[in-house]
Amino acid sequence: MKATIERAVLLRSLGHVQSVVERRNTIPILSNVLIEAAAGGGLRLMATDLDLQIVETVDAAVDQPGAITVSAHTLFDIARKLPEGSQVVLTAAEGKVQIVAGRARFNLQTLPRDDFPVIAEGELPHRFSLPATTLKTIIDRTRFAISTEETRYYLNGIFLHVAEDGSAGPVLKAAATDGHRLARVTVPQPDGASGMPDVIVPRKCVAELRKLLDEVDGSVEVSLSATKIRFDFGAAILTSKLIDGTFPDYSRVIPTANDKLLKLDPRSFMQGVDRVATIASDKTRAVKMALDRDKVTLSVTSPENGTASEEVPGDYAAQGLEIGFNARYLMDILGQIEGDLVEVHLADAGAPTLIRENDESQALYVLMPMRV
Amino acid sequence: MKATIERAVLLRSLGHVQSVVERRNTIPILSNVLIEAAAGGGLRLMATDLDLQIVETVDAAVDQPGAITVSAHTLFDIARKLPEGSQVVLTAAEGKVQIVAGRARFNLQTLPRDDFPVIAEGELPHRFSLPATTLKTIIDRTRFAISTEETRYYLNGIFLHVAEDGSAGPVLKAAATDGHRLARVTVPQPDGASGMPDVIVPRKCVAELRKLLDEVDGSVEVSLSATKIRFDFGAAILTSKLIDGTFPDYSRVIPTANDKLLKLDPRSFMQGVDRVATIASDKTRAVKMALDRDKVTLSVTSPENGTASEEVPGDYAAQGLEIGFNARYLMDILGQIEGDLVEVHLADAGAPTLIRENDESQALYVLMPMRV
Repeated sequence: MKATIERAVLLRSLGHVQSVVERRNTIPILSNVLIEAAAGGGLRLMATDLDLQIVETVDAAVDQPGAITVSAHTLFDIARKLPEGSQVVLTAAEGKVQIVAGRARFNLQTLPRDDFPVIAEGELPHRFSLPATTLKTIIDRTRFAISTEETRYYLNGIFLHVAEDGSAGPVLKAAATDGHRLARVTVPQPDGASGMPDVIVPRKCVAELRKLLDEVDGSVEVSLSATKIRFDFGAAILTSKLIDGTFPDYSRVIPTANDKLLKLDPRSFMQGVDRVATIASDKTRAVKMALDRDKVTLSVTSPENGTASEEVPGDYAAQGLEIGFNARYLMDILGQIEGDLVEVHLADAGAPTLIRENDESQALYVLMPMRV
Repeated sequence: MKATIERAVLLRSLGHVQSVVERRNTIPILSNVLIEAAAGGGLRLMATDLDLQIVETVDAAVDQPGAITVSAHTLFDIARKLPEGSQVVLTAAEGKVQIVAGRARFNLQTLPRDDFPVIAEGELPHRFSLPATTLKTIIDRTRFAISTEETRYYLNGIFLHVAEDGSAGPVLKAAATDGHRLARVTVPQPDGASGMPDVIVPRKCVAELRKLLDEVDGSVEVSLSATKIRFDFGAAILTSKLIDGTFPDYSRVIPTANDKLLKLDPRSFMQGVDRVATIASDKTRAVKMALDRDKVTLSVTSPENGTASEEVPGDYAAQGLEIGFNARYLMDILGQIEGDLVEVHLADAGAPTLIRENDESQALYVLMPMRV
């Protein structure tokens, strides 16, 4: 193999693939990126952690086709430090790869191309296209609620499923929950998604997908089966195994009869919560909300530090109520509200609370209260 | 005590004092900042870790003079989150302090003012003024070489001493070393420094001093005795105990007869070292330099990763030589060279190497080689 590639192109692509590669691997070849130089020109870079795989095709001049695998993090670190604007020549020989750019020259150990594991995609019968902006919204509005508890592996991702949504017609829903809060986004069902199985996209795939989305406009092709999902960006293809588990029937958690409605400015609300939470003990971070006619009083009492309170004006006409929330969770949700008003639908101090921008918003959040 | 202060003024000052306060303290009051409201207006904020003390005076309207001590980090966190442009009212009553700004209200625990420890400065008979730029140069060019080995406590700071420097006349010298590298800066002796004792300024004082210097032009008044040093910025005064130890006679380490001179561009040199060091094992990070007529070949061999090499053009006429250095240490020094040429004075592969911009530069560095 011998190929010449622009340093900026190599760096950008390695930036994508290296973040799929885990820092520590018991199987040495999983630390490597597979680089294939095609006879017609161009390099194909590939990395995997056995659950998630990325393949990216980049421009390069190929003198001699071939393939090697070499440490992804080392090659990425080298590419970062190579002079800007330089041409990088990759030459494979005798179990090594030589990398030459400017006056710098590296000889790195390689592992055989044939040992590199590839995720067998199998059939991916369901196929649809999603605008990159929609996919970004789905991820941004839900990912903070993904559980990190490994024992509840079926909550360690974003749940995607299609449904009929009454007058709204066929929709695609994305949901994430950790048992304390739930986030759900509903978007119009894209053509081809009808009849797709319910799937749980793992956290790591979500994170890599989100990074790639930062660099694209236009649409992403999504293909899936009951066990795998593929996101095709054109030059880059991300393929992931799905979480083999059953996502709980989250719709039962979404309250429909919360009769106390508070409307207020999400910015003032969030800043107030942030301020009073300053003195909360690190562990609980519980903020009390006392609702009264047209105002909310936020307060925190900490045995070590003292007390904090702040009044936030709001639109509230129902009966007075005191309720507690985890400040972090509340702020995560409020940080996702882009408009000037947020609706908080309450029932009582022990019941799940519904938060959304309004009844037309794509996103909806449910937050469990805390005893304060 | 009752006083009103602009949030921005309070925040800036707390930013200075809170970084003197350690995160963990066995003596509770050391977590606190002492705030004194003077009858004539203005607040005085003070914090200490018993070795280092900062006192800062800021504008404030005082309704009722008095003094409290309250958690420095908590108050700083609160001030950060208070609305921009707000006025902060501090009111002390019954062992608490109330902080009100906008719609937010905090009640924090206090500890009695009289329990707050103050560093007794004693007599500081030696006094001189240093331009802030000079003090910045002294710190920036030497601090990276300060030892972090606690057992060699006498190396945990910057050594300051006055000397007669031949034709240069009376000078002030600053030096730091960790046994592997030495950095020394020589500046003209300021009026009043003559006859001052040799002192070692501790690392933490150096760090806080450097932060304060970022915000000042003009000069800083330095006063010292054999045991204490004070830096007076006008509004802020930093007082530190000095390290009670003997700094080694570092002048013996500075080679005077290194007869092999290499001159090269410090930027290319540093980038080359950085690149080849990419594949060095984390532990040793040894880079080999092979000197030949008008070039240096930098190289690294790593059993796990492979090899790296880079040629850097340089001006060298002496006999060929191979020598190894710790890449990190070499880059620390090269990062301090601002001109387009650096001089590397070598003797042999086992001898201390002298690095400086030229024979007129204020700063001089000595680096011990490594076996490679």
